[in-house]
Amino acid sequence: MAKRPLQQQFEAQGDPRHAARATRSAGRKMRSLLLDAASPLFRERGLSGTAITDIAAAADAFPSQITYYFRTKEALFVECACRELLYLARATEQAALKARTPRDYTHALAETVTASDSIAFFAEALTLTRRRQDLAPLVERTIERLHSEGARAYAGQVARHGWRSLRAPDESSRRFWAVAIGVILEGYAMGRSPEVLCAEMLRVLGEQAKSTGDTARLRLVDARDGSTDSNEQG
Amino acid sequence: MAKRPLQQQFEAQGDPRHAARATRSAGRKMRSLLLDAASPLFRERGLSGTAITDIAAAADAFPSQITYYFRTKEALFVECACRELLYLARATEQAALKARTPRDYTHALAETVTASDSIAFFAEALTLTRRRQDLAPLVERTIERLHSEGARAYAGQVARHGWRSLRAPDESSRRFWAVAIGVILEGYAMGRSPEVLCAEMLRVLGEQAKSTGDTARLRLVDARDGSTDSNEQG
Repeated sequence: MAKRPLQQQFEAQGDPRHAARATRSAGRKMRSLLLDAASPLFRERGLSGTAITDIAAAADAFPSQITYYFRTKEALFVECACRELLYLARATEQAALKARTPRDYTHALAETVTASDSIAFFAEALTLTRRRQDLAPLVERTIERLHSEGARAYAGQVARHGWRSLRAPDESSRRFWAVAIGVILEGYAMGRSPEVLCAEMLRVLGEQAKSTGDTARLRLVDARDGSTDSNEQG
Repeated sequence: MAKRPLQQQFEAQGDPRHAARATRSAGRKMRSLLLDAASPLFRERGLSGTAITDIAAAADAFPSQITYYFRTKEALFVECACRELLYLARATEQAALKARTPRDYTHALAETVTASDSIAFFAEALTLTRRRQDLAPLVERTIERLHSEGARAYAGQVARHGWRSLRAPDESSRRFWAVAIGVILEGYAMGRSPEVLCAEMLRVLGEQAKSTGDTARLRLVDARDGSTDSNEQG
C-alpha cells in the first residue's frame, strides 16, 4: 500500500480513525445536549425532584442514552453543576474587567455570583459527592480550575491597576469562593434576595486590596495602563 | 370553691395544668430522645439514606411518634442539624478559651470546627431548606444565634486579652462560619482529612486580630488579666 500524507489519511472517508473521530464528535455533541437539557431541571427541582425520564424528554433522547453517557443521574448532576460553576466563574471575571478600584472589582464579582443560582447548585453537588466519592475527581478538577483561574484573573487586575493586594492572589480567590458558598447556601435556605446576598458577601469578604491610596496615583496608573503594557505584570 | 395558693394549685395531682405540664415535659423528653437517635443516622447516611423506620428502631419508638413530634423526616433532619451546629459552636468557644494569642485563638476555632462533621450535616440541611421554605424559620433562628453568640464570644476574648481586632466582631464571626461552610463542604466532597481542612481554613480566613504587637506588652496584658477584671471589657 502506497504511503499517503498523514493529513490525507485522516481525511479519507473509509479510514477507521476517521469513523472513530466522527463517533467521538457525535458523542461529545450528545453529551453536551444532555447536559444542556438537564441543568435547568436540576437547578429548579434539585436531584431528587428530577427523574432521568424528565431529562430524556427535555433532550428528546432516550433514558438509555443518559445512562450510556453518564452512567447515573448523580454523575450527570455533578457534571452539570461543575460545568455551570465554571461558566459562572468566567462570567464573574468578565463582569469585573471594567472595574477601576478594588472596591468596584469586589462588588462586580459579588454581584455576578449572587445573581445566579450556580453556587447553590454546586453546593448541592458537593453535598452529594461527600457520599459518592467515585464522583470526587471531577469536583476536584473543577475546584482546582476555579482557584487557579480566579487567582490568575485577580493577579492580572492587581498588576494592571497597580493595586496593593492585602494577601496572595490564590488566598484571595479561595476566600472569595469559600465565602460565596457559605453565604449563598445560608441565604438560599432563608429565601434571601440576590441584593441581600450581595451585601452580606461584601460585608463578610472585607477589603481585598488597596488602590494606591490617593486617587492621583490611581489615575496615573490607569493613564499609563491605557497606553503601554504595565511593567509590574507577571 | 375555696381559693388555694397558686403554688399549691400547680402542685395538686388532679390539676389539669399539672397534667398538661407533665405531658409537656414528657413530650420534650421524647423529642430529645428522637433527636438523639436520629442525629448519628443522618450524619452517617444523609437524608435519603435514612428511613423513619430506622430512626424509630434506634429510638425504640414507633414511626408514628416521629411524625407526631416532627411531622416529616425533613423537618427532623433540619432540627437535628441545627441542634448539632449549636453544640459545635459551644464546643468551639470552649476550645478557644485558653488561647493566649489571636493566632492560637483562630487555630483552636478552626481545629474544633474541622474535627467534626456537624458543618457538613448543617450544609445538607441548608440545601434541603432551599426547597422546603416551611423549614426556613428554624434555620434562620439557628444562624442568628450562631452569629450573635460567635460575635459575643470573640468580642469577649479580644477585650480580655487587649487584642486589636481587624474588623467588627460580628463580621469576624460571620466570616468564620461562612468560610467554615465553604471550605468544609468542598473538602468533604474531595475526601480531605480534618488536618488538611484545618490548614485550608486558616489559610482562607487570614488574620483576625493583632496582639498588641510586642510580646512584652502581651505578657503584661495577660498578667493583669489573671488578677483583675479587664477595664476594656463591655
